[in-house]
Amino acid sequence: MKIQKYKHDSEYSYALGMTLVIEMLKSRSDVVTCVFVKQQTYRNESYKLLEQLCNDANVSIEQNDKAFNILSPKGNCFVIGKFRKFRTDLLDGSHIVLVNPSDAGNLGTIIRTAVGFKIPNIAIIRPAVDIFDPRTVRASMGALFHVNFSYYENFTDYLNCYSNHHMYPFMLKASKSIHEVDFQSPYSLLFGNEATGLPDYFTNLDNGTPVIIPNSNEVDSLNLTIAIGIGIYEATKDFWRK
Amino acid sequence: MKIQKYKHDSEYSYALGMTLVIEMLKSRSDVVTCVFVKQQTYRNESYKLLEQLCNDANVSIEQNDKAFNILSPKGNCFVIGKFRKFRTDLLDGSHIVLVNPSDAGNLGTIIRTAVGFKIPNIAIIRPAVDIFDPRTVRASMGALFHVNFSYYENFTDYLNCYSNHHMYPFMLKASKSIHEVDFQSPYSLLFGNEATGLPDYFTNLDNGTPVIIPNSNEVDSLNLTIAIGIGIYEATKDFWRK
Repeated sequence: MKIQKYKHDSEYSYALGMTLVIEMLKSRSDVVTCVFVKQQTYRNESYKLLEQLCNDANVSIEQNDKAFNILSPKGNCFVIGKFRKFRTDLLDGSHIVLVNPSDAGNLGTIIRTAVGFKIPNIAIIRPAVDIFDPRTVRASMGALFHVNFSYYENFTDYLNCYSNHHMYPFMLKASKSIHEVDFQSPYSLLFGNEATGLPDYFTNLDNGTPVIIPNSNEVDSLNLTIAIGIGIYEATKDFWRK
Repeated sequence: MKIQKYKHDSEYSYALGMTLVIEMLKSRSDVVTCVFVKQQTYRNESYKLLEQLCNDANVSIEQNDKAFNILSPKGNCFVIGKFRKFRTDLLDGSHIVLVNPSDAGNLGTIIRTAVGFKIPNIAIIRPAVDIFDPRTVRASMGALFHVNFSYYENFTDYLNCYSNHHMYPFMLKASKSIHEVDFQSPYSLLFGNEATGLPDYFTNLDNGTPVIIPNSNEVDSLNLTIAIGIGIYEATKDFWRK
């Protein structure tokens, strides 16, 4: 099988690492096309589980050291799962909306957090990083296979589909502190780009409440993934408190 | 001036990037020894501010493209600040305690969050990543120059110094959900290693309340920096709500 470095326009992507490949086989074995292992992969308990899952799903395991040279040049990975990229639809219920996210690892961490707090619906406004970038897959720790996502060419396209949602743009130019907000479902929590945040335009959305997470003057802002983690935590609190 | 790649045992470290160097000059110009710029660095407003801050602090600016080849081989950086590593002491008040943190970027993000929520006191239990690793400096976005930190050989050494603190170890094997905890000052929020979390031993601390952030079964746990962000957010809530 010919192995190619991942490209945004390729039909396939890769999950790197034993835990991640096992998680993918458990949750979305229908998209897995092949599993590569290194010759020196240690045949431990995890490996036996991998074999069983591949067997159950009719996925072949291929010894292919070359795949690792191409896909994981740093050499700290012993199992790679190749999978067909897939499409999903957003479900009803609340959403996370990422406006122009640009960091692949961050997107994976955000997916992990969204799935962790049971808001597995992520809308992504272009231009944006590719959700199937292997760094995103890796940082999601397998949560990518449990999330519903959809890309939009611009925010208006998203808004037209979900005008019934209450919009909560997280931004420094916001009128309300997160401590004063009572999140109304279904809601959309909106977050901007890592470097630039949300444009001023988002302060004036219909059915919108701009939210700020207050912080000390000694930092300009919080890290994006941290702000999203706190936003999701606060918005879902009543669910988890039960 | 001879430029060497950063090593853990070197006396100096480096801040990469204009914003970071400016932040360092504003807050800790006493430790800055030199600023390197690339020949093609654009002389914009930021550059003028840099020049002024260097002038005020009696720090020389040196055109040195070789420094960039060594310290920033990817080439997306035009200003580097060299600084002398420094020591700090933890202040009275509440602390973040990191047990065996292993990721340099994560440590920087954690520092940024701690300073952002005004708990600028971080105890680090060895073995642990080096707080002066340039990746930590960078991810802290300058918050490193506002944090008090101290390394300890083991957790007992820390505990002996701060036995008056209420200890809140964040761990999956915890008895109390974060939603039920009323954080008592002065407190120490304890977090384990990225991959392994806190050892079971932490469930039985005197004056300790193990805390869990509940999450769905579809992820094993939250990302460490996200868990710390949420923990700090919740513990400092009363302060920010005022």
